[in-house]
Amino acid sequence: MAGEKITSRASDYSQWYLDIVNRAGLAENSSVRGCMVIKPHGYAIWERIHDALDRMFKDTGHVNAYFPLFIPKSYLAKEEQMAEGFAKECAVVTHYRLKSIPGKGVEVDPEAKLEEELIVRPTSETIIWHTYKNWIQSYRDLPLLINQWANVVRWEMRTRLFLRTAEFLWQEGHTAHASKEEGEEETKRMLEVYRTFAEEWMAMPVLCGPKSDGQKFPGAEYTLCIEAMMQDKKALQAGTSHYLGQNFSKAFDVKFQNQQGQQEHPYATSWGVSTRLIGGLIMTHSDDQGLVVPPRLAPIHVVICPMGKELPEREASTKCARELAQQLKNLTREEFFGYEPITVKVDEDFHNSPGFRFNEWELKGVPVRVEIGPKDVAQNACVLARRDIPGKEGKQMGVPLSTAADTIVALLKTIQANLFSKAKAFRDANTHEVNSWDEFTKTLEAPGGFLLAHWDGTRETEDKISELTKATIRCIPYGGDTTPGVCVLTGKPSARRVVFAKSY
Amino acid sequence: MAGEKITSRASDYSQWYLDIVNRAGLAENSSVRGCMVIKPHGYAIWERIHDALDRMFKDTGHVNAYFPLFIPKSYLAKEEQMAEGFAKECAVVTHYRLKSIPGKGVEVDPEAKLEEELIVRPTSETIIWHTYKNWIQSYRDLPLLINQWANVVRWEMRTRLFLRTAEFLWQEGHTAHASKEEGEEETKRMLEVYRTFAEEWMAMPVLCGPKSDGQKFPGAEYTLCIEAMMQDKKALQAGTSHYLGQNFSKAFDVKFQNQQGQQEHPYATSWGVSTRLIGGLIMTHSDDQGLVVPPRLAPIHVVICPMGKELPEREASTKCARELAQQLKNLTREEFFGYEPITVKVDEDFHNSPGFRFNEWELKGVPVRVEIGPKDVAQNACVLARRDIPGKEGKQMGVPLSTAADTIVALLKTIQANLFSKAKAFRDANTHEVNSWDEFTKTLEAPGGFLLAHWDGTRETEDKISELTKATIRCIPYGGDTTPGVCVLTGKPSARRVVFAKSY
Repeated sequence: MAGEKITSRASDYSQWYLDIVNRAGLAENSSVRGCMVIKPHGYAIWERIHDALDRMFKDTGHVNAYFPLFIPKSYLAKEEQMAEGFAKECAVVTHYRLKSIPGKGVEVDPEAKLEEELIVRPTSETIIWHTYKNWIQSYRDLPLLINQWANVVRWEMRTRLFLRTAEFLWQEGHTAHASKEEGEEETKRMLEVYRTFAEEWMAMPVLCGPKSDGQKFPGAEYTLCIEAMMQDKKALQAGTSHYLGQNFSKAFDVKFQNQQGQQEHPYATSWGVSTRLIGGLIMTHSDDQGLVVPPRLAPIHVVICPMGKELPEREASTKCARELAQQLKNLTREEFFGYEPITVKVDEDFHNSPGFRFNEWELKGVPVRVEIGPKDVAQNACVLARRDIPGKEGKQMGVPLSTAADTIVALLKTIQANLFSKAKAFRDANTHEVNSWDEFTKTLEAPGGFLLAHWDGTRETEDKISELTKATIRCIPYGGDTTPGVCVLTGKPSARRVVFAKSY
Repeated sequence: MAGEKITSRASDYSQWYLDIVNRAGLAENSSVRGCMVIKPHGYAIWERIHDALDRMFKDTGHVNAYFPLFIPKSYLAKEEQMAEGFAKECAVVTHYRLKSIPGKGVEVDPEAKLEEELIVRPTSETIIWHTYKNWIQSYRDLPLLINQWANVVRWEMRTRLFLRTAEFLWQEGHTAHASKEEGEEETKRMLEVYRTFAEEWMAMPVLCGPKSDGQKFPGAEYTLCIEAMMQDKKALQAGTSHYLGQNFSKAFDVKFQNQQGQQEHPYATSWGVSTRLIGGLIMTHSDDQGLVVPPRLAPIHVVICPMGKELPEREASTKCARELAQQLKNLTREEFFGYEPITVKVDEDFHNSPGFRFNEWELKGVPVRVEIGPKDVAQNACVLARRDIPGKEGKQMGVPLSTAADTIVALLKTIQANLFSKAKAFRDANTHEVNSWDEFTKTLEAPGGFLLAHWDGTRETEDKISELTKATIRCIPYGGDTTPGVCVLTGKPSARRVVFAKSY
């Protein structure tokens, strides 16, 4: 397997994605239907995502807490839309004991049946708002700004590694506010956190704005989203921030005494992103050589490959490699994106050929590769290869070892910026204004991408378009064209263009 | 509730513990039987524990990964001891869908019954070794050094916040090695990581050594443990490291080609600590004023309380407080335990009395409180109060503001060391050699504590002693007295003294 080429995007996009997930060591399907094993390299990317977002949440005043995995079945019924939205895909715990039958394995003990079945959380609004009832009495208890990092389960029938799995890891923020205005501000603030993270860390440009009613979260007044374009021009919903109004505070009878001394239901938000982001990361930047990870999320920033055929050559190049690694490690955190130390790996695996080694590191998406061979040693220099531009074009030859560390730091920043602008140019090139139904369906077929189209604002038309074309309204984008027009399907008046696309 | 005193340890130890968990805002029981809500202050301590241990795991060559929450029922049966040990306390998922019945809530959909029931993981040896079968082919794939941070569920009948809950958070390391020696070295290495963490971060002295056969992990060849003494003199098992031999590699048919070209089953370890550590932390250091947290794990290291009756006084003291906070924040990480920035909170809550504010911060266990009143401002000074020595005795008056930051850093280190030596002195004072059955039972009754006693080495005697006294063998301590003697119960020969105690 090692050394084999991965499927190209052009020949089979889905297989290309699976090849990358597999060959870069990111994840695999487990023997439990729909559940994945996140492998060390994939998990290391998740740790970077976690750390960056966690810092942003704390910087905006949030604290973490942890709520139970299990939710009593009856809680789900308390908020009607939620019951409708999530009941279909729940893992249900009905018993709390097995019995071991010697020679015959283990069986569920029928006597250990729960009085009330428990749901494995698909999302935690219900259990959290049940808990908030005891935490919120007065306006002085507000705002309550809590986030949880957790696993959740949704019994999806068609799964796909990272993008749609029965169990996934995520964070879910659940906040309570004393006024509608504060709740709505929070909803926007967290969308902006997600946008910043998507664009500045993931280098993944996103459209921001509300979902249409047909696409909002069950139980929300409205849902804001960040929406990205993958390399097959399909949309990926990458994060959502919901304004829940008083739906959950009413359903769970949570009240506070406001500054005027009156009892009032608090105003709620919830917001989340998940391991799905890793799927988005892969499909935004990766190429036919393998994974591409933007420097700010790369588990390893720089790999240094000393080379040489004979032992003395190997020793000399290894010495240079280690010295350069040490120089990079000595750089203060401030020199690299403000807070992160640079992670460097020296690859001293001389058993494999340089070509094999380079391929493996390209597969894994390490942003900068440093090559040090005997000729480089003789010149006190090295070769820098940047992952975002494969082949000779992305190589800098004869970089003096004395200044290589600084050159690498600058290059990492250049790569981060380049990945974003490449992805943005791709999205922009594949975003089309369409003005008739004919144009809509033809453009969707080829070239595909995001369609900016007029829509009459009704759920009925939205559903009809989706039924006819599989394209859905991805978002009503902030900063989009708000000139009125007529709906592409019905010809009825439209307030503004919205974004349609096929999606994951 | 606020301002009320907590129960004293002397009057009701169990209630004291619950009062601290409650009043310090660490956790509470949820509406789901046996599951807790970890509240923000409790979760912040868990984050510190996570970060410190995670760094130590990585420094010893481990990487993180994530395996499914669910385990097919049949996997549990593959390792016999495991089935025996865990079957009794499992949450069992039998269905994957609810149906919403308008007006009647939600019901389990009988048509959505799983072919094979799934167990919510009580520990992950089985699913992980099932996965390792595909990851391990050759000695070059070894050692495999993987850790997982996860939630697990054991359906405990008698639960207690942090110490024993149905769901808890933990880390579980699962490693595979090419030889018995390497496996056993790893088992010891991780025990040493746990000892270091317990003693140097938690300031909680621990005994280290193997468990007796009666107390080992189901499926292990042997179990090493760290064992701590709580303030009621009962033992708490705080972490375990298991040498699993080839039990799991055989049960899941995992083989590798060794350097001699032969097929061999790898040698395994597993090791874990959990949110139980927070219970141990509370019961090791806290006092009748509230929680005490050692500086290295404190979410907030220093709280600065400006005071004053009138606005100008308040403004002046707040100015001093903020300046000091800034000085503390400006200290480089290296000045405080090597890597951690100092976390400072300025408490500007003038609405409450100084006494009330001080009490609240003592309840929460903040290691150092700085008081700045009008008289202090006049002298350009402040008062430092250390949490480990309550009352006037622990106060330093007239500390010049110009040098306060350095004094505080030194004080934090002193507190860390003092908490450890206090706890160690307590444990040592409550550890008794006993030489007869009469002495054993009387000492166990009063004064209680750890009993160093001879035991004949049989499971039968171990069980009998536990049945008669509720004391169990906590560990066969490294560095303990290895002079032979005779068993306190049976009079039969004993190779060495072991540690007996009542435990959590």
